[in-house]
Amino acid sequence: MGKTMLEVQEKEREHHIPQTMSAGFLDRVLEVGIRQIPVPQVSGTEVLVKVMAVGVCGSDVHYYAHGKIGNRMVQYPHIQGHECAGIVVSVGERVKRFRVGDRVAIEPGTTCMSCRWCKEGRYNLCPEVQFLSTPPVKGAFVQYLKHREDFLFPLPDSLSFEQATLAEPLSVGIHAVRRGRIKPGDTVAVFGMGPVGLLTVMAAKAFGATTIIASDVEPLRLAAATKMGATHVVDITKQSVDDVIAGVTGGEGVDAILETSGNEKALQSAVPLIKRGGALVVIGFPAAEEVPLNITLMLQKEIDMYAVYRYTNTYPQAIALLAEGAFPTSELLTDFYSLDQLQQAMEQARTNKSGSLKVIVYPNPSSNDQP
Amino acid sequence: MGKTMLEVQEKEREHHIPQTMSAGFLDRVLEVGIRQIPVPQVSGTEVLVKVMAVGVCGSDVHYYAHGKIGNRMVQYPHIQGHECAGIVVSVGERVKRFRVGDRVAIEPGTTCMSCRWCKEGRYNLCPEVQFLSTPPVKGAFVQYLKHREDFLFPLPDSLSFEQATLAEPLSVGIHAVRRGRIKPGDTVAVFGMGPVGLLTVMAAKAFGATTIIASDVEPLRLAAATKMGATHVVDITKQSVDDVIAGVTGGEGVDAILETSGNEKALQSAVPLIKRGGALVVIGFPAAEEVPLNITLMLQKEIDMYAVYRYTNTYPQAIALLAEGAFPTSELLTDFYSLDQLQQAMEQARTNKSGSLKVIVYPNPSSNDQP
Amino acid sequence: MGKTMLEVQEKEREHHIPQTMSAGFLDRVLEVGIRQIPVPQVSGTEVLVKVMAVGVCGSDVHYYAHGKIGNRMVQYPHIQGHECAGIVVSVGERVKRFRVGDRVAIEPGTTCMSCRWCKEGRYNLCPEVQFLSTPPVKGAFVQYLKHREDFLFPLPDSLSFEQATLAEPLSVGIHAVRRGRIKPGDTVAVFGMGPVGLLTVMAAKAFGATTIIASDVEPLRLAAATKMGATHVVDITKQSVDDVIAGVTGGEGVDAILETSGNEKALQSAVPLIKRGGALVVIGFPAAEEVPLNITLMLQKEIDMYAVYRYTNTYPQAIALLAEGAFPTSELLTDFYSLDQLQQAMEQARTNKSGSLKVIVYPNPSSNDQP
Amino acid sequence: MGKTMLEVQEKEREHHIPQTMSAGFLDRVLEVGIRQIPVPQVSGTEVLVKVMAVGVCGSDVHYYAHGKIGNRMVQYPHIQGHECAGIVVSVGERVKRFRVGDRVAIEPGTTCMSCRWCKEGRYNLCPEVQFLSTPPVKGAFVQYLKHREDFLFPLPDSLSFEQATLAEPLSVGIHAVRRGRIKPGDTVAVFGMGPVGLLTVMAAKAFGATTIIASDVEPLRLAAATKMGATHVVDITKQSVDDVIAGVTGGEGVDAILETSGNEKALQSAVPLIKRGGALVVIGFPAAEEVPLNITLMLQKEIDMYAVYRYTNTYPQAIALLAEGAFPTSELLTDFYSLDQLQQAMEQARTNKSGSLKVIVYPNPSSNDQP
Repeated sequence: MGKTMLEVQEKEREHHIPQTMSAGFLDRVLEVGIRQIPVPQVSGTEVLVKVMAVGVCGSDVHYYAHGKIGNRMVQYPHIQGHECAGIVVSVGERVKRFRVGDRVAIEPGTTCMSCRWCKEGRYNLCPEVQFLSTPPVKGAFVQYLKHREDFLFPLPDSLSFEQATLAEPLSVGIHAVRRGRIKPGDTVAVFGMGPVGLLTVMAAKAFGATTIIASDVEPLRLAAATKMGATHVVDITKQSVDDVIAGVTGGEGVDAILETSGNEKALQSAVPLIKRGGALVVIGFPAAEEVPLNITLMLQKEIDMYAVYRYTNTYPQAIALLAEGAFPTSELLTDFYSLDQLQQAMEQARTNKSGSLKVIVYPNPSSNDQP
Repeated sequence: MGKTMLEVQEKEREHHIPQTMSAGFLDRVLEVGIRQIPVPQVSGTEVLVKVMAVGVCGSDVHYYAHGKIGNRMVQYPHIQGHECAGIVVSVGERVKRFRVGDRVAIEPGTTCMSCRWCKEGRYNLCPEVQFLSTPPVKGAFVQYLKHREDFLFPLPDSLSFEQATLAEPLSVGIHAVRRGRIKPGDTVAVFGMGPVGLLTVMAAKAFGATTIIASDVEPLRLAAATKMGATHVVDITKQSVDDVIAGVTGGEGVDAILETSGNEKALQSAVPLIKRGGALVVIGFPAAEEVPLNITLMLQKEIDMYAVYRYTNTYPQAIALLAEGAFPTSELLTDFYSLDQLQQAMEQARTNKSGSLKVIVYPNPSSNDQP
Repeated sequence: MGKTMLEVQEKEREHHIPQTMSAGFLDRVLEVGIRQIPVPQVSGTEVLVKVMAVGVCGSDVHYYAHGKIGNRMVQYPHIQGHECAGIVVSVGERVKRFRVGDRVAIEPGTTCMSCRWCKEGRYNLCPEVQFLSTPPVKGAFVQYLKHREDFLFPLPDSLSFEQATLAEPLSVGIHAVRRGRIKPGDTVAVFGMGPVGLLTVMAAKAFGATTIIASDVEPLRLAAATKMGATHVVDITKQSVDDVIAGVTGGEGVDAILETSGNEKALQSAVPLIKRGGALVVIGFPAAEEVPLNITLMLQKEIDMYAVYRYTNTYPQAIALLAEGAFPTSELLTDFYSLDQLQQAMEQARTNKSGSLKVIVYPNPSSNDQP
Repeated sequence: MGKTMLEVQEKEREHHIPQTMSAGFLDRVLEVGIRQIPVPQVSGTEVLVKVMAVGVCGSDVHYYAHGKIGNRMVQYPHIQGHECAGIVVSVGERVKRFRVGDRVAIEPGTTCMSCRWCKEGRYNLCPEVQFLSTPPVKGAFVQYLKHREDFLFPLPDSLSFEQATLAEPLSVGIHAVRRGRIKPGDTVAVFGMGPVGLLTVMAAKAFGATTIIASDVEPLRLAAATKMGATHVVDITKQSVDDVIAGVTGGEGVDAILETSGNEKALQSAVPLIKRGGALVVIGFPAAEEVPLNITLMLQKEIDMYAVYRYTNTYPQAIALLAEGAFPTSELLTDFYSLDQLQQAMEQARTNKSGSLKVIVYPNPSSNDQP
């Protein structure tokens, strides 16, 4: 019923899709500007989504603060944002899966679907991928976004748009635990309790890990880790992860370590903490180009190392886990701004004032879905 | 019939198992002595094997020359040798699988078969493993060897004892291509053309790789690589592996690199040569404790790194491949010594005079099986 | 501390291991007798366990009522029971993992650990397996049981002996969901809500299935299914499973069906209810020797069919899941008898009076662990 | 050089793409007619292929003779043929991978590449698949065929068009041995030595199976099986497959049986011949709707049953194996007709006169590639 009402309202709004919209531009390092641009037209299998919520990712902050990640340079003016959800307001003539009024999560990377990687189910490796907000592709800090229907996913009514934005970082966690073959009963450690780390804890828990050791330097993040399923938290400014893992596993080591911090020392420290036959799952990009690893020990223990790059085929699962409600994911959402306040939102994310986990930006006026 | 004759002869010999036997001792670095020791008694599920051929492994040479590998120290006097085959001459009262006269290959590592790794089929990771010739366990440079029946494998008549010793290094190659998920049609590169590298080429070929790029510094080893199935060989003193792989794969990179040389630079150089989603299989132990790897590139291409430690459940397959005769494995056997000549054998293996690939030692007088 | 006390008490009791013990014999169909027999001696890696709780399995009931399962005949007098847990009271001279006083779950099948299946990690297929209570091997309805240490598993203090007996049927469920590749977000159906079906629901939930459809004919079992994690229950006397699955999956079918009932019609009905590329996991033994399956449809949808026979390497995981306390497993335990009341216990299990799920037998007087 | 010449010639021919072309129609059961139809126009990512060779598949023959397979009915007039190869003569404006003059194999099933199956790498299960010659989609018995570039694969010069048509049935064999996890050293049996069976033998050999038992009723097919790599052939009119398998495996059973005959009795007979933990791979569609299987035995031996439906991501591998030249695949090509002789070609395939294996049809005048 409510849905029917919503659909009706949306149908109406459809008649009112404006000609222009606000977009949040990154004009140079640390400088954001809001300007009007045309609303895109859709055709074929394209869908126009009214963007209702966008999460700020650590990579957004890095581009915002440094103008590049590795050798990928921002091309100004740029538009950031790729963790997003919204409402379908217009569909191309060949769209089959969605109707106006549908609530959707947006998987940000659209791929060619014809190269060998796409055909083998590893489309995250597609050389032709267009990933929202990764330069030079523009992102989701806009009021309306054009996206291919095959990278949109329906949201249950129970899931707010803000929570739905978490499907993106949760996808990273799911992909990581899949690649690391995490299974029920496993003992794992997750390094780094930023949003990706926290959602990797959630994914490990959802895959059945019964002992989850989470480490970070911030008490508030560690408190959040406990809520997401960590059975042990380690403040590495006060305690040694090595000691905790040794204690928990009787010196045998964990089944897997999932490294999300991007800290070179953390990555190096992982190998001795993994049990024979275990896995090292690397998620966070290290700043250093090369990281020295103890290959001899990896050989003696026959450790697999799995690199994780984005994700594939995770959205339905991520949405199902978020909608199930078994995890207090709304507690990860800590700061809220309108698109007009984008500069403040980015600064909040950059300076990471105590208590801030995930910053949410609303490109359009609040709906009932807001918390 | 011939077999029956052999059995009869062996049954006779059984009555003549001597009280003592020759054993080749490593008394200190570079110094070998032959002395008489008691022939072991067997009981339970133990089998006494008359050792007919033993291959000299690179690790044997390393212990012989340096007295240690990493932090594993030789305890003198030591007995080396673990690539071996022979004839059953006596069996314990609970032995079911073998009879006196059976020709067997010896899998050198006997494990507890009750820890979690053994029960999960990864017995190469058993913390209780007793591996022939790995200090402090004594090895196979003896005339008679006691071994558990569950780590002996029957040899077809068509396979000589010398060739059967190759089941051990071939097992490493098989385990490596299994772990690296090598499959028909794959393009792979194998670094290092010592015996393990050559037999890894053979394993890759047997698993269906259709393009195999082999690299080394010695023309004779590269010539052997071609015989074992390499489609491209690269003398890295004259040519760049990078260029060859770029040419063969159109710049896309290989499905997998199998690194057997233990050379740190070779390992480091591998990452850029692997295609997106490909695998880096590490077999050779590097001398350096830590090897710097380009983790960022591994992340962007989502490369799996598999460490290889010995092998599990490879002997039946290795023997089947050797017996099939599709590979000219006897050409890998280049030097032959009696046990009395053990010092010369070790020197030949150590100095690796041109043309030498695998050195074979005969603990017992030659049989018809000799080439 | 409590533990130390317990150990002290047990150490004392060790001095009082009696010469003889009560054993529950199956003397012929439907006829049970309690008699005294010698307590076994242990040596080597054997452990003597004081049996504190034994669950009655459906297969026990079938042998009790029919004297055979398929072509396996009971050899009278027989001793039944294989879902069991207890306290270590004596250890052989080579036992390393356990001490007197340890609380343990008993994995009932001991295997040769030297055949190809055992070495490959599939020891459930060992041709030499000795499985408690499977004729002619005697079972656990005894006060003291001799068992190899490698098939005993330590229990946390938080887990009662009665709950620990569920590690056995839960192992079947875990093995089934592993073989069926059940993963987070999956939609599955489980047919048959006997204890194995209920614990398969639990296993599917633990592996992350978010939609679980459970079917049976008994309302009380379906109520238990809901408690174990089923999101939809179907009383097939009143409702069509086909309709429910069609409704839940939008006609697409489930990712997997796990058939535990052994009902031939249920198995036949499964194929059309599975989505393209899904799995049919067969757990229950059908009465009919042959079951007609729609192979054409299985081909068109490329359905995998996985047969499940007992389990391997499940006990640590099963114990971890039971101890975690996320599932109300104690509610599955509905009827309790002393060993002297074995006949009544078997009758209760056989006649399955309303409300009965799992019948527990206590071979020894109650301890603090009793509910 | 020759290639440059060919390209030049083809470029010229491009200017001569005719307006109309010959097409072979199935007008009713057993009745074929050749008529002129317009040559298709290509745009976007479409490619126009001049069809140089088409193999006649068993399914073509079945539709030709019966007008249907299962509940799939021919819609007359129909065009058959889907095992095909040719030369690119025109490309759409967005085609990137091919140029006029390229020699290509045609993977006959084009899929949506946006459903969950396509995205997971199992595009053979795409509900929207358009498969050449499967009603109502028209097939390849035409002079020019329009096809999407992502389902075309480049042919090396060494591979003739006729051999390239075998990439299609070989793909079935590759998909089957992949799904059956066939690995080096395996012992397998392949039932049915039609072209798919013969190419399944080849695939099993390419994946490293060292013992391959092939069964059929026709001596000529069994002779071909030997050439394709079978180590044992069984004429089931004279010998029992059961006896041969028992003899070869010492009663243990084979690692896998690959059933390609579609014979119900053959499928039923397979279960007892498979070793514990082995696999039954079903490829041939049985005529009967339901086939009774011994589920009890499958449970006791924990046998996996894998259904095989077409294939995914096999063409590069199939072409690599065909081009490698290790298998005498040209001997499978036994009968050759021009498109004008299509009726005779179909009759030859249908009546399967002794000695006929694969019938090839040439839609265009012969090139140098003909044998």
